[in-house]
Amino acid sequence: MTHVEILMLLQFIGIAAFAVSGALVAGERQMDWFGVMVLGVIVAVGGGTVRDLLLDVPVFWMAAPWYVLLAGCVALATIPFARFAHRVRRPVAIADAVGLAVFVSLGTRKALEMETSGFVAVVMGVITGIAGGVIRDVLANRTPTILRKEVYALAALCGALLFVFADWMGLPPLLTFWISSGVVLIIRLLAIFYNWSIPTLKVEPGEQD
Amino acid sequence: MTHVEILMLLQFIGIAAFAVSGALVAGERQMDWFGVMVLGVIVAVGGGTVRDLLLDVPVFWMAAPWYVLLAGCVALATIPFARFAHRVRRPVAIADAVGLAVFVSLGTRKALEMETSGFVAVVMGVITGIAGGVIRDVLANRTPTILRKEVYALAALCGALLFVFADWMGLPPLLTFWISSGVVLIIRLLAIFYNWSIPTLKVEPGEQD
Amino acid sequence: MTHVEILMLLQFIGIAAFAVSGALVAGERQMDWFGVMVLGVIVAVGGGTVRDLLLDVPVFWMAAPWYVLLAGCVALATIPFARFAHRVRRPVAIADAVGLAVFVSLGTRKALEMETSGFVAVVMGVITGIAGGVIRDVLANRTPTILRKEVYALAALCGALLFVFADWMGLPPLLTFWISSGVVLIIRLLAIFYNWSIPTLKVEPGEQD
Repeated sequence: MTHVEILMLLQFIGIAAFAVSGALVAGERQMDWFGVMVLGVIVAVGGGTVRDLLLDVPVFWMAAPWYVLLAGCVALATIPFARFAHRVRRPVAIADAVGLAVFVSLGTRKALEMETSGFVAVVMGVITGIAGGVIRDVLANRTPTILRKEVYALAALCGALLFVFADWMGLPPLLTFWISSGVVLIIRLLAIFYNWSIPTLKVEPGEQD
Repeated sequence: MTHVEILMLLQFIGIAAFAVSGALVAGERQMDWFGVMVLGVIVAVGGGTVRDLLLDVPVFWMAAPWYVLLAGCVALATIPFARFAHRVRRPVAIADAVGLAVFVSLGTRKALEMETSGFVAVVMGVITGIAGGVIRDVLANRTPTILRKEVYALAALCGALLFVFADWMGLPPLLTFWISSGVVLIIRLLAIFYNWSIPTLKVEPGEQD
Repeated sequence: MTHVEILMLLQFIGIAAFAVSGALVAGERQMDWFGVMVLGVIVAVGGGTVRDLLLDVPVFWMAAPWYVLLAGCVALATIPFARFAHRVRRPVAIADAVGLAVFVSLGTRKALEMETSGFVAVVMGVITGIAGGVIRDVLANRTPTILRKEVYALAALCGALLFVFADWMGLPPLLTFWISSGVVLIIRLLAIFYNWSIPTLKVEPGEQD
């Protein structure tokens, strides 16, 4: 397999995993099948969409409808298997980590190709990776998991920072891409297997709440 | 009445119905009058705004402030009558269906005029119709009704698909517009009167929720 | 101090106050430190980001990363002091009012500089001031405070209207800026000290909720 084919395969895995996560959260809120499809698609394309709006470039899925169609089909295909969801939580989390790793690197690279500053590229990489999941939780009416626990956004941040640093060091593009993706994947897998988390802040709700 | 006048009248009905729905949901969350106005406006212009951001064209209401003003005034005018809201639920739902029908066709047509693919035009038509209501429910801190029950987004999808198909078949623009709007309206009215709904997915909340 | 230095100082105060409000709300939802940082940044830059997306101009913080960095650092610096948050509620609210006043004027002015209509400029001024706080509450899974009570958005509206009116009257730019900011600040301070609020609308939840 060539680099492009491997990247495409990893993207497929990531899109599918993101769509499954959207479908399951939709099911937890007892959405109808249309809502399941919408949430699956939004998790898969949400991050890249927000990135492209901020960068003011054409939204990527307009020229690549297969992206939306794949996510929608995977979300719908999740429905008959949703009752077994708790048995495959671990494999789905791993596939999700693969998706995060690839999307963060792709997002960072796209921003750098638009000649943004390194700072903006890091922000765009993180947004590409996590915004879909944040929108998912907002639509499911719950506080975004990504902002509450698990080393998820932080893994994305490390990968995006490393990408920009490697790019600035002049490393070959392919090496830069895989180092960055690899770091995100490793951090996420360690976080999943060892239940890593970042300390949380606890504040008593004020009188106005 | 000419075609343009009829279309304008239907748009007025739709904007008013959407603004009323926003105002009533704001009232269910005991928002203040300013919040009532904001929610009314957002339901009425939200869908078209998201569409225009995604298409990267000037947001439609910037050149047509009357759209925002009408929605805001209708929302404020709803306040003294809000206590009678449960008595006019049916008429409001019908006016809302008129709005959905017109907005879906207008959204699909605008995308096609930008020379997007048929796929993108369908997505834009659906977004134009439903995004305002989704944002309304997110701001009112509840899971979007549109994603949970009632044949609402599905009616929008059917209309947008039919619009693109009729356009591709080469039907006259006016006929395309009214067929598409008519189908959305009929499906919605049937769904309202016969309580149609799509099956829902039920998933037990995971341990992380 | 020159006008520019004073304006910069007031912006610093505003950014810091907005970031603190984001960090405290994140703490009320027991977010982790990354979530605290994200929420702080979003409150500080959210309004200007939505404005720039709607105006279709480059998002302001891309060329001014210090804005994001300042907000992120202030949010993180809030963590060790969060337990004392209830003791400094009043000073934080006053700093927040300073931020609102400056951001509304800056947002209105930016829109006018893009040669939008006065109507659009008013809307953009209000959005610049309040959208960050609205997104904060959506991410914290609660109905936006700004839409429910306190004379907050209304203060922004008055300031933006006054800015456009003064600009239309041909007043000197600096005078226009400070009159508008001053009015927002005064209304907000009066609202804080006298617990002003706008009447709310109460609607019984419908059967569909």
